Amino acid sequence: MANSRFEYVKNFEQPDTLLPNTWIVVRIDGRGFTKLCARYGFEKPNDRRALDLMNAAAKAVMGDVTDITIAYGVSDEFSFVFHKSCTMFERRASKLVSTIVSTFTAYYVYLWSTYFPDTPLAPPLPSFDGRAVCYPSVQNLRDYMSWRQADCHINNLYNTTFWALIQLGGMEAKEAEKFLAGTLAKDKNEILFSRFKINYNNEPESLKKGSVLFRDYELVEPGSQPVDHADGGFGEPAQQSKTQIENDKKRRAKAKVVVEHLDIIKDDFWERRPWLLSNKPGKIPKQT
Amino acid sequence: MANSRFEYVKNFEQPDTLLPNTWIVVRIDGRGFTKLCARYGFEKPNDRRALDLMNAAAKAVMGDVTDITIAYGVSDEFSFVFHKSCTMFERRASKLVSTIVSTFTAYYVYLWSTYFPDTPLAPPLPSFDGRAVCYPSVQNLRDYMSWRQADCHINNLYNTTFWALIQLGGMEAKEAEKFLAGTLAKDKNEILFSRFKINYNNEPESLKKGSVLFRDYELVEPGSQPVDHADGGFGEPAQQSKTQIENDKKRRAKAKVVVEHLDIIKDDFWERRPWLLSNKPGKIPKQT
Amino acid sequence: MANSRFEYVKNFEQPDTLLPNTWIVVRIDGRGFTKLCARYGFEKPNDRRALDLMNAAAKAVMGDVTDITIAYGVSDEFSFVFHKSCTMFERRASKLVSTIVSTFTAYYVYLWSTYFPDTPLAPPLPSFDGRAVCYPSVQNLRDYMSWRQADCHINNLYNTTFWALIQLGGMEAKEAEKFLAGTLAKDKNEILFSRFKINYNNEPESLKKGSVLFRDYELVEPGSQPVDHADGGFGEPAQQSKTQIENDKKRRAKAKVVVEHLDIIKDDFWERRPWLLSNKPGKIPKQT
Amino acid sequence: MANSRFEYVKNFEQPDTLLPNTWIVVRIDGRGFTKLCARYGFEKPNDRRALDLMNAAAKAVMGDVTDITIAYGVSDEFSFVFHKSCTMFERRASKLVSTIVSTFTAYYVYLWSTYFPDTPLAPPLPSFDGRAVCYPSVQNLRDYMSWRQADCHINNLYNTTFWALIQLGGMEAKEAEKFLAGTLAKDKNEILFSRFKINYNNEPESLKKGSVLFRDYELVEPGSQPVDHADGGFGEPAQQSKTQIENDKKRRAKAKVVVEHLDIIKDDFWERRPWLLSNKPGKIPKQT
Repeated sequence: MANSRFEYVKNFEQPDTLLPNTWIVVRIDGRGFTKLCARYGFEKPNDRRALDLMNAAAKAVMGDVTDITIAYGVSDEFSFVFHKSCTMFERRASKLVSTIVSTFTAYYVYLWSTYFPDTPLAPPLPSFDGRAVCYPSVQNLRDYMSWRQADCHINNLYNTTFWALIQLGGMEAKEAEKFLAGTLAKDKNEILFSRFKINYNNEPESLKKGSVLFRDYELVEPGSQPVDHADGGFGEPAQQSKTQIENDKKRRAKAKVVVEHLDIIKDDFWERRPWLLSNKPGKIPKQT
Repeated sequence: MANSRFEYVKNFEQPDTLLPNTWIVVRIDGRGFTKLCARYGFEKPNDRRALDLMNAAAKAVMGDVTDITIAYGVSDEFSFVFHKSCTMFERRASKLVSTIVSTFTAYYVYLWSTYFPDTPLAPPLPSFDGRAVCYPSVQNLRDYMSWRQADCHINNLYNTTFWALIQLGGMEAKEAEKFLAGTLAKDKNEILFSRFKINYNNEPESLKKGSVLFRDYELVEPGSQPVDHADGGFGEPAQQSKTQIENDKKRRAKAKVVVEHLDIIKDDFWERRPWLLSNKPGKIPKQT
Repeated sequence: MANSRFEYVKNFEQPDTLLPNTWIVVRIDGRGFTKLCARYGFEKPNDRRALDLMNAAAKAVMGDVTDITIAYGVSDEFSFVFHKSCTMFERRASKLVSTIVSTFTAYYVYLWSTYFPDTPLAPPLPSFDGRAVCYPSVQNLRDYMSWRQADCHINNLYNTTFWALIQLGGMEAKEAEKFLAGTLAKDKNEILFSRFKINYNNEPESLKKGSVLFRDYELVEPGSQPVDHADGGFGEPAQQSKTQIENDKKRRAKAKVVVEHLDIIKDDFWERRPWLLSNKPGKIPKQT
Repeated sequence: MANSRFEYVKNFEQPDTLLPNTWIVVRIDGRGFTKLCARYGFEKPNDRRALDLMNAAAKAVMGDVTDITIAYGVSDEFSFVFHKSCTMFERRASKLVSTIVSTFTAYYVYLWSTYFPDTPLAPPLPSFDGRAVCYPSVQNLRDYMSWRQADCHINNLYNTTFWALIQLGGMEAKEAEKFLAGTLAKDKNEILFSRFKINYNNEPESLKKGSVLFRDYELVEPGSQPVDHADGGFGEPAQQSKTQIENDKKRRAKAKVVVEHLDIIKDDFWERRPWLLSNKPGKIPKQT
């Protein structure tokens, strides 16, 4: 049976390579997680097990896909960042997005029973959708990350107050919603404190800041190193020898992926971890 | 903390809606399945459990995503077809692809233990990548499906012969490969029969034809119905009333998704199942 | 001077091929023609010289670019249609659009003095922008053409009435605008007739219908020929021999491009000119 | 005549906005200029009139489209650069490309008789095609410009030698081609000098360097000004007030567009003209 007369259909596949020398962010979002939360009885405003499961799945993704530089997660979403010099899958959007989303989903389902030992999964199963976005400059990338972290803060403050009004204040959902309409951050802080003796500042960092995942190397004293924009920094063809590329890969594989809850809006985070933007692996810390 | 100064980053997301009035095929492929087959000891040339797991996952996807009209699977790949009138996710490629790939992966991992009760999964987990392709005409779509089924046949004949030479004929892999180089279909048929008394025609349909999944309604006698190209057939704005759309949806939800191993290259398959191309649900069979 | 270290910049060019087996419409629009009309004293509501110049430029484009099947123009816009089997420039959008827009502009400027002998061009010069849109089905394509012709009618009726109120009725522009706000087609017909004794039906076809350009062959009696959807009709790889392709090309080159003012919304226009949709040249008429 | 049932065809137009915060280069190329050169008797290796016409057309384009920062031309091609902060036409590729290509063509045809007073144009007319490419970083953009200028040098040295062999050395075209096959730059220099007493270094800058067009302001002493990357430099939303934007626009309009033949590969060119990369107009020189 000759296949050749059908093969023309391959020509309908259209290329979707992402612009070179731009930072690629693949963000995934839980599909229909409001229903899912209800079905599995997630705690409100935050379910520690669910967040830990998200982080565990993301950490596994970073272990499998070593081209990912940094990831940031909050609630049922996670953003994975590929360095602008990344050439994985020839930068094809559909390959990058589908690989991330599939790997994440696989670990999410696989690890579910670890985090929810008493609540077995049943269809319809949790799933995620995803998309890739390109950011041309470091500033654009950092603004993207800041946007997600600022959003985390805004939502968490709202949810903390909203659920306090319900769980501690005895309000109905609609009542709480109405009560909070138009309030500013400071108003919510005030409500939490005056009504429920909750100091929002003392809430766990993991909830206020979300989770940032990256390969961990020795921190660098800000200003102690010249900023080396040369590392692929200008989109010139990589100057690295094959040996160097292989060495970098090995160092990256050796590095431990950590889950932290740090401020990624301020410069300090990035200055102390120059490898995140340079893509040049740092020193492996001695005792980890 | 004002989020507004970061929000401009949303403008970098670029639209990826697929051309209206075209058939959308989302094909997913196993990532690194050669290694996976080795790790979990898949039987050669075909592992019944693995194929059944693929089909079970695809069937679950079709249950969750009712916009899928038909799906075709072979080996570690599956193609899901959305009718040309489909407006799910406003036809955004990344949403369609990531949803399919994520849902499929979720069921694949979830159902693994059903099909491999003695071989627990362990990281790195199975994952899939995906892409969407648009086909403007019914002929293009059918040629795509024919291409995959012809490919199934070609590969299965080759693999059946290759593994017979090894498992029954005692050849080494390299030797068998060399032996088969340049052979035609009839040569392979001949080798199978003369050396191993295997009549390829008697091999299971599921291996020779792959698997085709669709919502099952009463078959139609070819020629008994006027071909109704009017059902969205010309890309005109849908003429259906809301009630009709709702009714169709309900009938679709009631229909059973079946897994068959039929010839989808010939006209007969399509003529007897007009709902596949018209998107108009057929009659629910009485006893299923 | 080695050029090689700069050549990587070629990789930033992203493909823009249009989906195969779809009708390509390149529409061009005059840029800032309101100002241009004022500067060169175009007559209102329609300037015969300006419309003739548009048609002459479009006719020249069709002479140069033989892949164009049909074109439709109204006011300062023109739509050029490439058959769905067209492979010119490998269907790259930017090449197709820029070539049409450039060729059209060249003739528009070159022929200006023929149509405006007393009004020499001076900078800033007339220019056009353009875009390409794909239509998967014949119905979609015909609906596009109908959309433009219906628009022509609506605008021409409005403009005819608007300028009659000003030129014959002595109204100010704002007054006429207000007067016409909310009026239906029949109201405008009535205004024209009762106030100015103008029967809109007697207005020139060129203004009511716009201009349709195509290669002219002998008309076909509707129903006298089987509809031959096989001519590339299903997006299958072209079955034509090289000789046949060459012959078709020659016949197309011999055919005269005509400028007509016909109804292209009704079926009749298309049924009598089957070559427009089949891309198979007809018979060259005897006396042209 | 209701137009609404056709209007759905507008939905088939697909967006083509270019990634924000990237440099946009629109390059246009003459179509079939080899034939055109023959038809109008262009002098070889370079026709001064034809090059001057290209530059005049490009200068007029820059006058009409004030968003263009810099342009570079050689032979029958021209590259127009939009600053990465450009928002013209919402960065839609087809609008940007078609506008440039149309405006350029209009001036090319309009100005033809000025540069070729004795050789009137006749159909088929000269035309150009075009495309848009995005460059994320200044280095990428400068490498693109360097690529074109290095190409200019390579081609001009080749052509100068090739035509000297024919016009002065009496060779046939094929003979000259063969003779030059495999030669390096220094070989060609040597041939020119030893055979024809031509010192390539003394050839006109306009031929060796091509033409660079930009709005002219007072040159800046390198190092005398802090590099102000803040001017839109990081893709952040523009911080400029409306007044400032208006003022900049006016200063840009006042600036004279100059045609120079300078080295744009070395840093000096860019350091002395910081406005090219910052998009902040410089000081209008006193006597121009």
